[in-house]
Amino acid sequence: MTRLIIVLFAMMASSVVGAADENCIPCHTKETPGAVKQWRGSAHADKVFCAGCHGEDHQAIVAGEAKVTATVCGRCHEQQLDEHQSSRHGMGLHSGWGCTRNMPRRDQRECRFCHEEGSDIPVSQVHCARFLKQSSEIGELGCNRCHLVESSCATCHTNHLTDGKIARDPAICAKCHMGPDHPQWEMWQSSLHGALNNSAGPDVGPDCQRCHMPAGTHNVSGGLTMTPGGVLYPPADAAKNRDFMVAICSECHAPAFARRELTSGDAIREQSRAIVAQAVKIVRELNDAGLLSPSPQERPAHPLRGHELVTDSQMLYEDTSHIERLLFKMQKYDFARTVKGAYHQNPAYTHWIGNAELKMDLVDIRAEAERLRLMGQWQATPTGAADIKEERETEQLLQILRGRFERGEIDQSRYEQDKKALLDSVLQ
Amino acid sequence: MTRLIIVLFAMMASSVVGAADENCIPCHTKETPGAVKQWRGSAHADKVFCAGCHGEDHQAIVAGEAKVTATVCGRCHEQQLDEHQSSRHGMGLHSGWGCTRNMPRRDQRECRFCHEEGSDIPVSQVHCARFLKQSSEIGELGCNRCHLVESSCATCHTNHLTDGKIARDPAICAKCHMGPDHPQWEMWQSSLHGALNNSAGPDVGPDCQRCHMPAGTHNVSGGLTMTPGGVLYPPADAAKNRDFMVAICSECHAPAFARRELTSGDAIREQSRAIVAQAVKIVRELNDAGLLSPSPQERPAHPLRGHELVTDSQMLYEDTSHIERLLFKMQKYDFARTVKGAYHQNPAYTHWIGNAELKMDLVDIRAEAERLRLMGQWQATPTGAADIKEERETEQLLQILRGRFERGEIDQSRYEQDKKALLDSVLQ
Amino acid sequence: MTRLIIVLFAMMASSVVGAADENCIPCHTKETPGAVKQWRGSAHADKVFCAGCHGEDHQAIVAGEAKVTATVCGRCHEQQLDEHQSSRHGMGLHSGWGCTRNMPRRDQRECRFCHEEGSDIPVSQVHCARFLKQSSEIGELGCNRCHLVESSCATCHTNHLTDGKIARDPAICAKCHMGPDHPQWEMWQSSLHGALNNSAGPDVGPDCQRCHMPAGTHNVSGGLTMTPGGVLYPPADAAKNRDFMVAICSECHAPAFARRELTSGDAIREQSRAIVAQAVKIVRELNDAGLLSPSPQERPAHPLRGHELVTDSQMLYEDTSHIERLLFKMQKYDFARTVKGAYHQNPAYTHWIGNAELKMDLVDIRAEAERLRLMGQWQATPTGAADIKEERETEQLLQILRGRFERGEIDQSRYEQDKKALLDSVLQ
Repeated sequence: MTRLIIVLFAMMASSVVGAADENCIPCHTKETPGAVKQWRGSAHADKVFCAGCHGEDHQAIVAGEAKVTATVCGRCHEQQLDEHQSSRHGMGLHSGWGCTRNMPRRDQRECRFCHEEGSDIPVSQVHCARFLKQSSEIGELGCNRCHLVESSCATCHTNHLTDGKIARDPAICAKCHMGPDHPQWEMWQSSLHGALNNSAGPDVGPDCQRCHMPAGTHNVSGGLTMTPGGVLYPPADAAKNRDFMVAICSECHAPAFARRELTSGDAIREQSRAIVAQAVKIVRELNDAGLLSPSPQERPAHPLRGHELVTDSQMLYEDTSHIERLLFKMQKYDFARTVKGAYHQNPAYTHWIGNAELKMDLVDIRAEAERLRLMGQWQATPTGAADIKEERETEQLLQILRGRFERGEIDQSRYEQDKKALLDSVLQ
Repeated sequence: MTRLIIVLFAMMASSVVGAADENCIPCHTKETPGAVKQWRGSAHADKVFCAGCHGEDHQAIVAGEAKVTATVCGRCHEQQLDEHQSSRHGMGLHSGWGCTRNMPRRDQRECRFCHEEGSDIPVSQVHCARFLKQSSEIGELGCNRCHLVESSCATCHTNHLTDGKIARDPAICAKCHMGPDHPQWEMWQSSLHGALNNSAGPDVGPDCQRCHMPAGTHNVSGGLTMTPGGVLYPPADAAKNRDFMVAICSECHAPAFARRELTSGDAIREQSRAIVAQAVKIVRELNDAGLLSPSPQERPAHPLRGHELVTDSQMLYEDTSHIERLLFKMQKYDFARTVKGAYHQNPAYTHWIGNAELKMDLVDIRAEAERLRLMGQWQATPTGAADIKEERETEQLLQILRGRFERGEIDQSRYEQDKKALLDSVLQ
Repeated sequence: MTRLIIVLFAMMASSVVGAADENCIPCHTKETPGAVKQWRGSAHADKVFCAGCHGEDHQAIVAGEAKVTATVCGRCHEQQLDEHQSSRHGMGLHSGWGCTRNMPRRDQRECRFCHEEGSDIPVSQVHCARFLKQSSEIGELGCNRCHLVESSCATCHTNHLTDGKIARDPAICAKCHMGPDHPQWEMWQSSLHGALNNSAGPDVGPDCQRCHMPAGTHNVSGGLTMTPGGVLYPPADAAKNRDFMVAICSECHAPAFARRELTSGDAIREQSRAIVAQAVKIVRELNDAGLLSPSPQERPAHPLRGHELVTDSQMLYEDTSHIERLLFKMQKYDFARTVKGAYHQNPAYTHWIGNAELKMDLVDIRAEAERLRLMGQWQATPTGAADIKEERETEQLLQILRGRFERGEIDQSRYEQDKKALLDSVLQ
């Protein structure tokens, strides 16, 4: 029934568009010649017209408010939309976790980031703590430009081009799947798969699509073992996913070999989790001892969790203590590089760029923990030393005040006034 | 008039060369077969001969002293030279700032790095503080190999090849525009522009040249908003440059969309500057309080500014305090990545590789500032503790001395002598 | 004589194989269709059959125990095996140093990592300290996947494909020669050589093979100046290698130019060694003064050297002090990038990614040394302060204990028990 309504709606839209098109093309051939040219060269040309996707509210289009969402594409490309919406690409990426609705469930607390108890409807569109800390410009370009894949087919297919080679090129995946937190593109490029792809083509050296979109499916989540937030699948689901992936590997490899290599990836994943767990424990206990500076209480509130210490996937990288920022790098970057490097069979990502960094992160975190413990003890020294500390601190503040004055940041009267206030406060 | 002289000179040079060539080719077919082969396959073959560009002083050529500068090429390629010399590529790159002669002016103090008051002539060829700190080998390969673009067309065109596809390939831009301080190549590659270039060619996915050298101009500076030193253009000039760039974007995009995206880049640039400014303030005030170690007074003099604290584009990365080196990374690398990432529409460079690093730099800088303040206070503890410190320090020095002796770095008599001197100094 | 035996053996093996093949293909067309397809399309098809390389012990093959080592390939490809085994690729890479058997000798102590006094036979297959610290999975994928080149031709040629274009593509070199410790692929790509290779092909822009495997030799070590462990060749051998490399460069360049550039690389190498030496000295003397934390005595034993301080090529990156991990980055990554960047003529790798990092590493190492010295002095403060320290430490431990209890990591009875034990220990 829903399907029938959609088809009817699409037909109505199309006919409306036939008319609208006569209004669009003449003007837009001058105003946005690139878009018109791309449309004319596309499979949509003379079949799907402008308003069919964009609607007819020109003012809304110009203001960027009439988004051509995946639902619009799904009017015709129904199967692809269904597959997309069942996959990680289609669910909850705005939350920073990725939803598990059609996937194995994680613990209830994670569901609560997006859903009220017992509800399948997200409470709002965006719940990622890091997104909430961004300026709107960084949020739009630095977060949504990728996470928009949830609701926009154009993320991979572009707006007006329909040539399949665009979406079948690993370069289009690279647009999001690169960089410090998930360099799948880079690790594929310098793996044997990528090397063979370069010299002998995609039949010999498989690309992203070959393994993650087998037979052209738009469900990209087959065969995975973790959610984007790093939560493991329950064993039964993980086993099913593993069989799915081994079947893909077996197009080229002996199944026993494929299974052995993927199991080795699982082991590396667990070893890496154990290294990270040591660091999390250190940070938690420093917080217990009141040694984080600034402490969660002293810093701006976490947009979702307030003043508690957050070390999971909603961890922030700003306004934290130095040791938490080291933990952030460790979990978000180096853990991901090690594990994804292993599953993608890239030696340097698994070892040097991943595992060695994890171990060096732990060295750095232990060293900073020791510094914080000693600094905490020093700050608790007896009165005699405290006097000296105060004297020295006043001296430091006076020097800073003079510097501001000399650089012209404050004028003379302000300088005198601040200096007096400082000295008065000390004498009290 | 100047032009006439140049043309006449070029004609003279050419005729001289015809003769010289007879001396060059037979020998160089054996000595530098690659160069001769490249020349024979080039548009210059049988038109421009060896001495026409290299001159006739064979000894100078062999010694690498007879450089084929841009002026030599400009004898024939006059328009290209003019455009090049009007652009950022042609001016003042040796200064580390890039000159603003034909661009909006910055403040007078910056002009003084290269020019005496009221003079258009640079006071010397090289004024970059970092260059002056280098060995000649690093200076030649690590600085000049790129900054030479100022005076050498071969930087992009190579020495003997003339095939336009070389200079029209983003790979040739990558030679300099990559790496930690300005990864334009990398951020283009993994942007939508780069992805489409890879799958659908340069007509669909624009390359560096399409936007920065429109219609083949050699003035690469159209449409920019900052000098290489990070100085903003005055509003009127920035507005003119913006119109220029929007016109280029509009070949493919709706102008309103292009302008919105570039304005978003401006906002990200200003937000990033504000984050950096917080860090600069912290470092300046630590210097005011005498807490940088080594302090500007204690370290080798800055080659241009002596013993003052330098936090601008002439900032050094060597012999500084740890916190200044953090600030260096922040300004030179992470600020550039964020802003250039935004203008090049690359999500990962804008957010993770850029903005997130900026914010983590600030976390690190604040933590180091707190450490320095505490360490400064500890070093000012009362006499009792100072005695202990001295005792402990002597003990440390004795252990180091023994280590040197045991590793055979000093012989026994030197060991005894140094030990005695140390103990004597303590007993005084 | 040896050669005759090998040929005879190869012939015997081949005839055995003809029969075995009848057993393999029908089944494997279903079980491992990719491998069979690749073999059918290869130069080996209908000439070298399955068991010719894999042997006939099916159980061992399935278990991954019947490795097709270089010796197997060498039965037919004798010259290539000889060249490979004379090169760095063929010797001692499992040691983490690379053997110098057919190369200039280093000092005897280094030979002792693999050989008993006076013996040419390695005492065991693996002697790399870092390998010995790995899990078997990381060891297999993160170490052996590359270092296997010693004994496996498939590392570059793949298992069943024989198309020469695979092994002649820099992408296959990239599989190992990339990443933080030896990014030869990346630095070639963005050098002039790589840029020209991209736009004008391998005749104009030389690839890895052109310079390092001239005339198709499998000895990849011609022209080098250092062993993988960073040990310099004696002058006479270095001079011979230099002549070899200058001859290769001279196919395109003037020999004087090539020699000048390579000599400049030597200078940069020596300057970089001098910077590293300053850092090594600082770390050694901190160890003398007992200021490393954890000290070599307090940490898990180095698998080859026990509890001594190791700063050479067998240096570890885990369980060390923070300052040693900075030194590790400096030596293993930044030194390599600078020097290889210089020899590969890449400005950004030589300067920013290499040399600037080396200098910033030294800044960081000096700062950490100062912190360690001050912290060491603070920990030696007199009794009064020590009391306070103990009190504060107890307080910290109590807070941590409460945190563990509140997070449910320990139950109430364990909490009470641990708390009592802690308080008792303080009261004693």
